[in-house]
Amino acid sequence: MTIHPKLNVVPFVSVDHMLKLVLKTGIDTFLKELAAYIEEDFRRWPVFDKTPRVPAHSPEGVIELMPTSDGTLYSFKYVNGHPQNPREGRQTVTAFGVLSDLHNGYPVLLSEMTILTALRTAATSALAAKYLARPTAQTMAIIGNGAQSEFQARAFQALLGIRKLRLYDLDPAATRKCARNLEGLGFDIVPCSTVDEAVEGADIITTITADKRNATILTDNHVGPGVHINAVGGDSPGKTELSREVVLKSAIFVEFPPQTRIEGEIQQLAPDHPVTELWQVITGAAAGRASEHQITLFDSVGFAIEDFSALRYVHDKISGPALFEELDLLVDPDDPKDLYGMLVRCEQAMLPRAKAS
Amino acid sequence: MTIHPKLNVVPFVSVDHMLKLVLKTGIDTFLKELAAYIEEDFRRWPVFDKTPRVPAHSPEGVIELMPTSDGTLYSFKYVNGHPQNPREGRQTVTAFGVLSDLHNGYPVLLSEMTILTALRTAATSALAAKYLARPTAQTMAIIGNGAQSEFQARAFQALLGIRKLRLYDLDPAATRKCARNLEGLGFDIVPCSTVDEAVEGADIITTITADKRNATILTDNHVGPGVHINAVGGDSPGKTELSREVVLKSAIFVEFPPQTRIEGEIQQLAPDHPVTELWQVITGAAAGRASEHQITLFDSVGFAIEDFSALRYVHDKISGPALFEELDLLVDPDDPKDLYGMLVRCEQAMLPRAKAS
Repeated sequence: MTIHPKLNVVPFVSVDHMLKLVLKTGIDTFLKELAAYIEEDFRRWPVFDKTPRVPAHSPEGVIELMPTSDGTLYSFKYVNGHPQNPREGRQTVTAFGVLSDLHNGYPVLLSEMTILTALRTAATSALAAKYLARPTAQTMAIIGNGAQSEFQARAFQALLGIRKLRLYDLDPAATRKCARNLEGLGFDIVPCSTVDEAVEGADIITTITADKRNATILTDNHVGPGVHINAVGGDSPGKTELSREVVLKSAIFVEFPPQTRIEGEIQQLAPDHPVTELWQVITGAAAGRASEHQITLFDSVGFAIEDFSALRYVHDKISGPALFEELDLLVDPDDPKDLYGMLVRCEQAMLPRAKAS
Repeated sequence: MTIHPKLNVVPFVSVDHMLKLVLKTGIDTFLKELAAYIEEDFRRWPVFDKTPRVPAHSPEGVIELMPTSDGTLYSFKYVNGHPQNPREGRQTVTAFGVLSDLHNGYPVLLSEMTILTALRTAATSALAAKYLARPTAQTMAIIGNGAQSEFQARAFQALLGIRKLRLYDLDPAATRKCARNLEGLGFDIVPCSTVDEAVEGADIITTITADKRNATILTDNHVGPGVHINAVGGDSPGKTELSREVVLKSAIFVEFPPQTRIEGEIQQLAPDHPVTELWQVITGAAAGRASEHQITLFDSVGFAIEDFSALRYVHDKISGPALFEELDLLVDPDDPKDLYGMLVRCEQAMLPRAKAS
């Protein structure tokens, strides 16, 4: 029998540790390395067990479990979406996740994933744009300047060198916050007061709004030839951001069609409307952008494999710097078959010492 | 806006805290109170969202997620089953779980559940027997003396006053361990060297073996009139403990038929073979034991609602004694819409102080 030290312990990356891990690595490097992990996992897409999300709905929102496995490792993410939460100071979306060894079922990592999800979403967006946007793209419009916006900006800068940003939000304070957070990083930022102004001359349009029910952020006249649309926000049944015309005139790229047809922009289209899976563009099995004039659309809803990649990356990163805590989450009795004996011995240890003879 | 202190914190009950919570409460009291929570939730069974388990299989075993919700609270359990794990000093089954507020999606408890699952399984078994065994039952045979056996013994003692135990295991060392762990608690224990010997005069027969593929532990001649069978072990597709004849001659009670038909002893029977749902016996909507001579069978596979009850109970218990840690699992930015700003401020805090003017 091999003796493993501390079989009870699961490494835990708290919010504080995640912030420090990201900053210690450098946000640009973190996003680039994370995108490389996602790209690696997209290349071997067919090996993954692709289970649909498991939702629990309430009138206020949804809690979802997102499991997947590559046959060696297993991950799941717990994520909630409750648009009214900010009214009480809570996040609309929070998340945590677990990475496990599929062969023995033991978790090897518990991690906060609110920050990590923002990073993986941005890294996936930039990865898709690397394959789909025109290589000459320089300017990105960001429609929606909330919690995810800066991460998108940083990822597009890190992976594609995008430095010109045109920001728009219904709430000008959100735009100011976004611009302020991105100060001093080499961006050329233009705050805009309408969507029309924001998309002017943009090579890439990122829509990342929330809390809207089938709000039409982008209409036909907003989208010129050659644009790449990175549709990130509003991803759930009954929530979309683009007009049907915009979706119809685009070449559409998605993560996992069965999920995107329910949650994505393409829920507006016929269920057999042709779409291309992003992983096939990455492996070269399918074509990406066909011409300089084509409008490409990455209809992003977020898929479990991206979370798997993110947890796999964080697990590899924390083996270096000790940016985790040890969580006493699993039992490790002296004899694996003697679970109850743990209670007996704990009780003995808690008793006042018997007098020595 | 209401200001909540420490919105980032999730109470965490470690293995050590769980042991101490159980011992501080007293094992008997813990089992009785836990059974009362389970009984309460079984009484309102129809309000629960009953999702099937979500499995991830490998050649060595399975990882499962078990979510449920009563419309106010939400829970899920992560549990693995890997029969070969003890060879490397790991547990066959480990588990942890989360209880959340369904209305805002925020977790309110993260808890170890390896010990808690053993306790909830035993409490559910004893609860079922309270409704199904003959009221005069005094003697219980326990076939299989592994990790779960002492918990079953303690629960049947606490809830039904069972004190006479007849123990049998293929491995005599397991029986010795079980007997030793139960010393000094008022049990009258008879170690047995065959199943035949163990079931002699038993009013209740608990089968709780593992690692067997369709092993037949109990056959027709083992089960006399009036016996209550508590079939706990071997609960997965292709794994059963009772001969088909034993199941056929019993009145069968189950937790959640769609799950039990796949995993339980009744996987051996026709898919429309009549079974009674335990919760209906508890509410009085269905009859329990029909006569002194009837053989009753609780075909237990473990259902998510029992884990929900267990987490709800632990959550209520820890509000008294401070038997938990505070886990920095969720983000709590100053402005809920400024997630990225957490990175900015963390970076500023990490920088060497700028000189004061």
